[in-house]
Amino acid sequence: MFETQEYTVTHSNAPSLRSFIQIDPASDFPIQNLPYGVFSAADSPKPRVGVAIGDFVLDLAVLEDEGLLDLSPAYEVFAQPSLNPFMALGPVVWSKVRAAISALLRDDNPRLRDDKPLRSRALRPRNEVTLHLPFHVAGYTDFYSSKEHATNVGVMFRGKDNALQPNWLHMPIGYNGRASTVVVSGTRVRRPRGQLKPPSADVPSFGPCKRLDFELEMGVVIGQPSSLGEMLTETQAEAMIFGFVLLNDWSARDIQQWEYVPLGPFQSKAFATSISPWVVTREALEPFRVAGPAQDPTPLPYLQQVSAQNYDLALDVALQAAGSNAVQNISQTNFKYMYWSSVQQLMHHASSGCAMSVGDLLGSGTISGPEKHQRGSLLEISWNGTEPVELAGGVKRTFLEDGDSLVMRGWCQGNGYRVGFGEVEGTIVAAD
Amino acid sequence: MFETQEYTVTHSNAPSLRSFIQIDPASDFPIQNLPYGVFSAADSPKPRVGVAIGDFVLDLAVLEDEGLLDLSPAYEVFAQPSLNPFMALGPVVWSKVRAAISALLRDDNPRLRDDKPLRSRALRPRNEVTLHLPFHVAGYTDFYSSKEHATNVGVMFRGKDNALQPNWLHMPIGYNGRASTVVVSGTRVRRPRGQLKPPSADVPSFGPCKRLDFELEMGVVIGQPSSLGEMLTETQAEAMIFGFVLLNDWSARDIQQWEYVPLGPFQSKAFATSISPWVVTREALEPFRVAGPAQDPTPLPYLQQVSAQNYDLALDVALQAAGSNAVQNISQTNFKYMYWSSVQQLMHHASSGCAMSVGDLLGSGTISGPEKHQRGSLLEISWNGTEPVELAGGVKRTFLEDGDSLVMRGWCQGNGYRVGFGEVEGTIVAAD
Repeated sequence: MFETQEYTVTHSNAPSLRSFIQIDPASDFPIQNLPYGVFSAADSPKPRVGVAIGDFVLDLAVLEDEGLLDLSPAYEVFAQPSLNPFMALGPVVWSKVRAAISALLRDDNPRLRDDKPLRSRALRPRNEVTLHLPFHVAGYTDFYSSKEHATNVGVMFRGKDNALQPNWLHMPIGYNGRASTVVVSGTRVRRPRGQLKPPSADVPSFGPCKRLDFELEMGVVIGQPSSLGEMLTETQAEAMIFGFVLLNDWSARDIQQWEYVPLGPFQSKAFATSISPWVVTREALEPFRVAGPAQDPTPLPYLQQVSAQNYDLALDVALQAAGSNAVQNISQTNFKYMYWSSVQQLMHHASSGCAMSVGDLLGSGTISGPEKHQRGSLLEISWNGTEPVELAGGVKRTFLEDGDSLVMRGWCQGNGYRVGFGEVEGTIVAAD
Repeated sequence: MFETQEYTVTHSNAPSLRSFIQIDPASDFPIQNLPYGVFSAADSPKPRVGVAIGDFVLDLAVLEDEGLLDLSPAYEVFAQPSLNPFMALGPVVWSKVRAAISALLRDDNPRLRDDKPLRSRALRPRNEVTLHLPFHVAGYTDFYSSKEHATNVGVMFRGKDNALQPNWLHMPIGYNGRASTVVVSGTRVRRPRGQLKPPSADVPSFGPCKRLDFELEMGVVIGQPSSLGEMLTETQAEAMIFGFVLLNDWSARDIQQWEYVPLGPFQSKAFATSISPWVVTREALEPFRVAGPAQDPTPLPYLQQVSAQNYDLALDVALQAAGSNAVQNISQTNFKYMYWSSVQQLMHHASSGCAMSVGDLLGSGTISGPEKHQRGSLLEISWNGTEPVELAGGVKRTFLEDGDSLVMRGWCQGNGYRVGFGEVEGTIVAAD
């Protein structure tokens, strides 16, 4: 516990806040952000929880051990290899700890700033640590909540007049994904094998996927459980959201096309889902809330949301083709376009009485925008392979090739600072 | 460790084996079975692992503590609230421990039989204990592998000529289910709410499901992990299977009908999946292996299985209507009819490189047989609600009503003994 608060109390999101750590205005990790992750270092290989601040990682296990985080000494939630124990403590504690970390990093608080031995134990250069999957994924659910994405896919496969399925405007359509293969940014993605049956073939064959794609998504990290049989109000759902990650829902389009009727995607999505190592808290994103698109028809009462539904969160996708040095932007969009919000997805998820768990991950669904450059998957960008993407040096892509590296970034732009997610990167390796 | 083996070594499945505990030939739990579960008692409320034997539960935490289970003293895998730590030790240990338990329970082995103080600590009347969910469900996947069931559903909704989807004969179709709502037998099942849009309605409404159904399934319990990117051979897949449970895949047909296009069942299956408290080991079922149905076309090489694919395992379903004393059998079928085997399901599941986890649960899919009395769901039994089931006292059912209790049983009939699963029971309670 820090005992004196001689500095002025300032909200942890205030643009005026400054840290004693020098932070570039273009950094994703100013004092207004404070995202959580799990890291280890060569000299201390046990993974534990840290917070990104500028070019450093703040070791929360050290601060907790010193009694500086306003937590009961009994907890020991940060000397753990996942965020789940901390998340389980609930939103009041999340807020208190965020305030304590913010106060410790302020330029006008001497406690950490002037304690050189503590600083050298607690602050590590970010490029010297290894980042791990930040939480144990209890369950992974993937939604399909961008109207532009669902419409693009519908036009491609069913034509303009039947683009949206009849249920789409009435609820956030989603399916259960595979939690065991959620991996952290930087994990190489092996090209999946599967049954393929192109229209020209009479029977399926088994082999490496030929239409490997990404899907640009945000992931919601659920930090509180709900009970079997319990529905959620908007207030309850909101309070259960710990934070957000960038999410790449890798997709094997050819495997998906053959397997998905009638029970949905299975092996086409099961081989990997990549997330960013940093979980940006709901609290850090609060200043960036904006209204979502008008919902027509009006959602059923159990899905209605009073507060601003969306976040103004810029997203881009860059592709570095195998063997090339050029990293080229292939999509620029924004999370604000989503038709169904994360809170609505969560209220729908629990509506049958489905119990939610600490560590559940909810993918937003591919985030596409109204413009062509805002499409969130190669399926849409290359219009089902018919319009190749032109990259530097005459390289073209319809889908991903072995050796390609894909990087997604996301950030909210504040006044003189940005609250960013870092990146989620994945490089494709050959099937064998 | 038991140090002397004066009795003859006999295979733990041998029909000639006898226990010093008196066991009725109609009991599900003779010495040839030895299924694992997790239990607690009023005087010792900490859940731990036990084995069902006749009318008793054998407390493995006590036996492990006494050094009687041929396990390294460091393990302490049975004083745990789930089977996962034991399962993680792998098939060689599973087999050794089974042999040790079998030996301890034999009528010609004095070690436990004549040690009255140990016996009274280790053996508890089954009706005095509480049974819990036997393992932590890491992931739950549900398949759709009965040709008769898929055909029945197809005929109902698409007509006889298009009953089976084109992919069905080429792979075990499945989808990811919701692991957090897998519950143990005896847990009451709240009627789910959801979006309903009968054909007569222009727009959906939200309310209690009106077409609540069961699905009779077996569940495979995966006891060993596989790595990201790794495919499985038949031998590997077989060795990863720890055992089987009875499984009731509760289904809200009306919610399902409206939500499932194009991403599959979601809230219609998310509210509850019930399993039996006893996990019958693969080893105990070995004598009951039989060939499965002929597979035409021949499966692709990655799905081919050399050993006998199926088990001769009788199954029945009984319904006790609300307010009635009569428990009436409404389905009698057999696991042996399944078209795709559990090993094939597992090989398919890992085929994309999907990592399997200790504690994964794979539902077989509804088990229907070729005859009308062998249908494994009310959807089929009542032919989509058009042919009500006639119960005692003039009661009729098309789907389940509040207060209805449904019981599934399963067993393999040996010569003078049966290897049974006990039951999985669930009673429907009103939505509010």
